[in-house]
Amino acid sequence: MKPKKNTIPGFQFAGFHCGIKDDIRKKDIAFIYSEEPNTLVDGVFTTNKVFAAPVTVCRDVVKKGIGRLIVINSGVANACTGMKGMQDALQTQKVAAKEYALNPNEVLVCSTGKIGDTLPMSTLIKGIRRSKNEMGKNYFMDAVRGIMTTDQYPKYATATGTISGKKYTIAVLAKGAGMLCPNMATMLAYVVTDLRFDRKTLKTIFRNAVDKTLNRITVDGDTSTNDTVLILANGRAGNKTFSVTSREGKQVETQLTALLEDMARKITLDGEGATKCCRVEIKGAKNESEAKKIAYAIGNSPLVKTALFGCDPNWGRIMAAVGYSGASIVQEKLNVWIGSHQVVKNGSGVKRKSMDALNTYMKKRDMDIKVDCHMGRGEFFIFMSDLTYDYIHLNAEYHT
Amino acid sequence: MKPKKNTIPGFQFAGFHCGIKDDIRKKDIAFIYSEEPNTLVDGVFTTNKVFAAPVTVCRDVVKKGIGRLIVINSGVANACTGMKGMQDALQTQKVAAKEYALNPNEVLVCSTGKIGDTLPMSTLIKGIRRSKNEMGKNYFMDAVRGIMTTDQYPKYATATGTISGKKYTIAVLAKGAGMLCPNMATMLAYVVTDLRFDRKTLKTIFRNAVDKTLNRITVDGDTSTNDTVLILANGRAGNKTFSVTSREGKQVETQLTALLEDMARKITLDGEGATKCCRVEIKGAKNESEAKKIAYAIGNSPLVKTALFGCDPNWGRIMAAVGYSGASIVQEKLNVWIGSHQVVKNGSGVKRKSMDALNTYMKKRDMDIKVDCHMGRGEFFIFMSDLTYDYIHLNAEYHT
Repeated sequence: MKPKKNTIPGFQFAGFHCGIKDDIRKKDIAFIYSEEPNTLVDGVFTTNKVFAAPVTVCRDVVKKGIGRLIVINSGVANACTGMKGMQDALQTQKVAAKEYALNPNEVLVCSTGKIGDTLPMSTLIKGIRRSKNEMGKNYFMDAVRGIMTTDQYPKYATATGTISGKKYTIAVLAKGAGMLCPNMATMLAYVVTDLRFDRKTLKTIFRNAVDKTLNRITVDGDTSTNDTVLILANGRAGNKTFSVTSREGKQVETQLTALLEDMARKITLDGEGATKCCRVEIKGAKNESEAKKIAYAIGNSPLVKTALFGCDPNWGRIMAAVGYSGASIVQEKLNVWIGSHQVVKNGSGVKRKSMDALNTYMKKRDMDIKVDCHMGRGEFFIFMSDLTYDYIHLNAEYHT
Repeated sequence: MKPKKNTIPGFQFAGFHCGIKDDIRKKDIAFIYSEEPNTLVDGVFTTNKVFAAPVTVCRDVVKKGIGRLIVINSGVANACTGMKGMQDALQTQKVAAKEYALNPNEVLVCSTGKIGDTLPMSTLIKGIRRSKNEMGKNYFMDAVRGIMTTDQYPKYATATGTISGKKYTIAVLAKGAGMLCPNMATMLAYVVTDLRFDRKTLKTIFRNAVDKTLNRITVDGDTSTNDTVLILANGRAGNKTFSVTSREGKQVETQLTALLEDMARKITLDGEGATKCCRVEIKGAKNESEAKKIAYAIGNSPLVKTALFGCDPNWGRIMAAVGYSGASIVQEKLNVWIGSHQVVKNGSGVKRKSMDALNTYMKKRDMDIKVDCHMGRGEFFIFMSDLTYDYIHLNAEYHT
């Protein structure tokens, strides 16, 4: 018997090896099932204009609004597979719906893995048929492991609370962006909760939380064809619904944001050979969109990334990235901090007697860089990783 | 006596160690001097909004239009140095002007090296005073070596021709973008010619040539604070002036573009540990600006860069980069070639019986990637390098 842990009322999970991956020790399929007919679903998807067939299928389900089952396979991304890929995604949805006696419109399908290959449909269908025997409310961790591709560790977190006297649970499971096989560089994350929501509140809270966390990761600036974040809320807790701006709404948004920030940091640190997760915060830009430009210019700069890896407080590279970001800045107004150490004041380097404190700070795994532009009130932050030998190793040695 | 080679009528050169760099075997200052009072100058500069003091000084000289002397130091970039940096750049200009009996408005100064440090002015001034003894028409190669920072080899090229019965020479010398010390990641290039130009023709031909060559290099997507390309044309050849659209204009533009393309390729291949120079050509985008977005998304993608280093024909990464470029594309219309091998047809991967020919092509030092979007007539190309272990080594191990 598996330990009773991470159960979420009204949800069942499964995760096992069905034969998509060659290595039988690696799980390659996962299932998240809700027992409640009126389980609300929402989703946030890749902004890449080249996107995989399952993303199209999920978008359609999210539009309709009810989600009972998520089928996730790893090993094959079903991306750049044309009409055949779309047919396969729809067939997966149909077969799973039949097996679980659901409407196909309530079944979501996700794929992560190699781009360009088509799904091994007969293997996948066998896996779906077998899944009912593998499913149970205690198998959360199997699902967590089932969505992993080459993540170095499973990524999940849970939180609980009470609303109108009813206890509720929120659980998150995720797999990383930028993994061992870069064709598997898909970020997938699933939120499951027994909270009762009205649709509008669910959408707002969910999208706010994703926007401040998972949408702000930059491992290598590349956006996957398959990135998908879904939430299922089955209402089993029986709480009274609440508005976004109520005390309860704020409580849930804070909890969900913290859970997803935890995932964002874990994904960043598990990103292709990364040794650091650095929060880059921009203040005083002309507006938010300019702050965002600056944050991503720093976060995607290979020179800044290698400096982080080398534990080098190289503020010249940060300044150069701010300068080419495309945002309106005035050099003489720029201030830069690494942690609490100011390194640039009014556009010029800050001379310091000893570099010891700064050099010690640079060795931390979790770090901050802050830039104040003194141009306006625009703010933005992102999470960035460093760029390491392992990144090159993982990405250059991997062959299609 | 040095060999008589690469002389350009009416120009003198110098390059030697004056003491800015610790290693006395390394030249750290270079001079380009024109004997002709009416030597025309034009320049193209970094678009980075954080730019070094000497860039401001050069921009002012270019506006006035006459350039007699270029003083280039390597080792210290004089960037992010505030008012002191500006004073130092102006003093360098003034001291050199006095030494050579020129108007300060005719003296250009360039710096390349570490960001944040101020120029060692007394050392630099001694170097300027000594330079007249080191100068001569046969010392082109000394200047070429004098502007090198950590380039692995000197970069120069020359061409000759005849216009209205007069022989002329065009010479180019350059140092690379993305060098051993990444704070020295400045691209500097100088064109010297004895051609007689009218100002408008000079500007048009020069800027067209730079735009199609040096402006299209992406080593790591980072734009330096000091990038500078200058042309001096002293008119000594005595040819009749010509228009841009004349046969002579086309001849000169073709020659200059070829010389600068040669520099662009050499700089790319000498970029931070690069092993490949890949020309990325986009066709059929909605317009040129969209084609440019796609080209740079591919050229700056660490995943594409590592695939090139790994000699892996990973078209999935190319497709993903096209997708997130921000350009309007339709997945099903995309076609991708690596060399002459089509790898994506109408958005789906091309199956091939044998990968041998493609794998052999991937081992080449000079490569091509071509994308046709079938959306319109927009075209653009760039030169990209790969991303290697040496890049990480050079950039992470280097400390400020």
